[in-house]
Amino acid sequence: MIIIGGPASNGLEDSIAKALNEKSAKVVDKLFPDGESYIKMPDEIDGEDVVLVQSTYSPQDKHIMELLLMADTARDLNANSITAVVPYMAYMRQDRRFTNGEAVSAQAMLRFMNAAGITSLVVVQPHKSTPFTAFHGNVSLVDPIPLQAKAVSKIISDPVVLAPDKGGINRAEELAGMLKCKFSHIDKVRDSVTWEVKVEAPLVGSFEGKDVVIVDDIISTGGTIAQAAREVLSRGAEKVIAVATHLVMANGARDRLKGAGVSEIFGINTVPYQDAKILDIGSQIAASLTKI
Amino acid sequence: MIIIGGPASNGLEDSIAKALNEKSAKVVDKLFPDGESYIKMPDEIDGEDVVLVQSTYSPQDKHIMELLLMADTARDLNANSITAVVPYMAYMRQDRRFTNGEAVSAQAMLRFMNAAGITSLVVVQPHKSTPFTAFHGNVSLVDPIPLQAKAVSKIISDPVVLAPDKGGINRAEELAGMLKCKFSHIDKVRDSVTWEVKVEAPLVGSFEGKDVVIVDDIISTGGTIAQAAREVLSRGAEKVIAVATHLVMANGARDRLKGAGVSEIFGINTVPYQDAKILDIGSQIAASLTKI
Repeated sequence: MIIIGGPASNGLEDSIAKALNEKSAKVVDKLFPDGESYIKMPDEIDGEDVVLVQSTYSPQDKHIMELLLMADTARDLNANSITAVVPYMAYMRQDRRFTNGEAVSAQAMLRFMNAAGITSLVVVQPHKSTPFTAFHGNVSLVDPIPLQAKAVSKIISDPVVLAPDKGGINRAEELAGMLKCKFSHIDKVRDSVTWEVKVEAPLVGSFEGKDVVIVDDIISTGGTIAQAAREVLSRGAEKVIAVATHLVMANGARDRLKGAGVSEIFGINTVPYQDAKILDIGSQIAASLTKI
Repeated sequence: MIIIGGPASNGLEDSIAKALNEKSAKVVDKLFPDGESYIKMPDEIDGEDVVLVQSTYSPQDKHIMELLLMADTARDLNANSITAVVPYMAYMRQDRRFTNGEAVSAQAMLRFMNAAGITSLVVVQPHKSTPFTAFHGNVSLVDPIPLQAKAVSKIISDPVVLAPDKGGINRAEELAGMLKCKFSHIDKVRDSVTWEVKVEAPLVGSFEGKDVVIVDDIISTGGTIAQAAREVLSRGAEKVIAVATHLVMANGARDRLKGAGVSEIFGINTVPYQDAKILDIGSQIAASLTKI
């Protein structure tokens, strides 16, 4: 086995290789003056079980194209098998045709990966898991919540866990189970008199004195989490911690969260964002590779 | 048949549809806030022979991904056949493995297009034609030189045609044949005494009083053409005209050419560059579609 980091591996090939006691290498990449990508694979592909590590954060299309070129080249160089570790998987939101004629890009990307020669896939907490039925081969979805629970538990007491919307309730339930506390999801409700949007969190009772842990898969602008943080702090919460996997952090998300009173932000090293407590998911990815 | 313009069609779907007396439509596209592309295909795909028009100029990876999403969606919506018209085809330079491990991106792109459901391909003057053996299905390479010869002949008398390097000699020969004149290619030679790089053009004799037509497939920075223009003007040429297909025009190429004395630049509407005499290749593409 050889673990090969692509241009957007975020260094994960090293921690994966270390955990597996296997060798790692790095792709040589450059940009031609006209904007085309150049990829050169390391030696020792022939007959090897090749693991390509390439995240697909922004610019997504460039990073996906690099991954497809890496896989196509590994196949051409007679790799025995090609596993792609895609820590952050782009295009997972458009997972069905909401109106006629729409590209179902989540499934399309998985088909393109198959077509480029990728035979197995490892993804860290994708936005949705349903699109993966479009992929032919083994798929392993790595759950970062045990790692997050362990890190968060060190800095909290008397916690309660919130998901920023109903769709994230399963993540909140899992994290709350490990932290042995209550959980709920946030509801945005419009006040019938003032027409203000207020944040509600059914099922948890009082926030008085609580350490509130808001958990999500992606922090993009952080708007909803900021709004929720303000609300629970005004209701007597002791502190608010934001726990996410992919810190996309667009348009001043950190300032927004800090300004709303979020005292700590946790993320995973699936994207290159650094200005938070970043946990290394390398061992968990390594463990999933041994099962493929 | 329906001719569908993608986000980078440069309007060509309309002139193609007009020449064929077929209907045209335009894809709906947008960018999600995180940078992912959204594609929505027009109605009337089911059972149709679909022609997708999408150039792949910069940002190349975004435009290629849009094309792959369009094709994948057309297949999903039961198109009878999917022809891609790719007026400017990116990634054609890396057409073999120059050193070990390199991605052969020219062939890879063609495999990705096949995998996305594209069954026939029309490209205007690709940088090289050899990679197209990697594509399964009909390939039609549209020759713009007759169109260029007709346009150029109106503004020249007593011409001579130059290719900017040895590799472009076939284009120069074809254009010279239509203009009924001599042709050659430019050689860069280093003076053995002064070590200056000089431009030579064997086989054409004197440039005195000649209208020199420099022909190339792509103008990127225009450096070589500018150097050649200076040289032939210093040797008594009457004027210099640059004729190319894909006006990529990077890093102030136009100023460079104009500064070197190039009096006119001709291009084709395969890329969105406007600041030159742009010829419409729609009819020639339409003609090639009738043969597929």
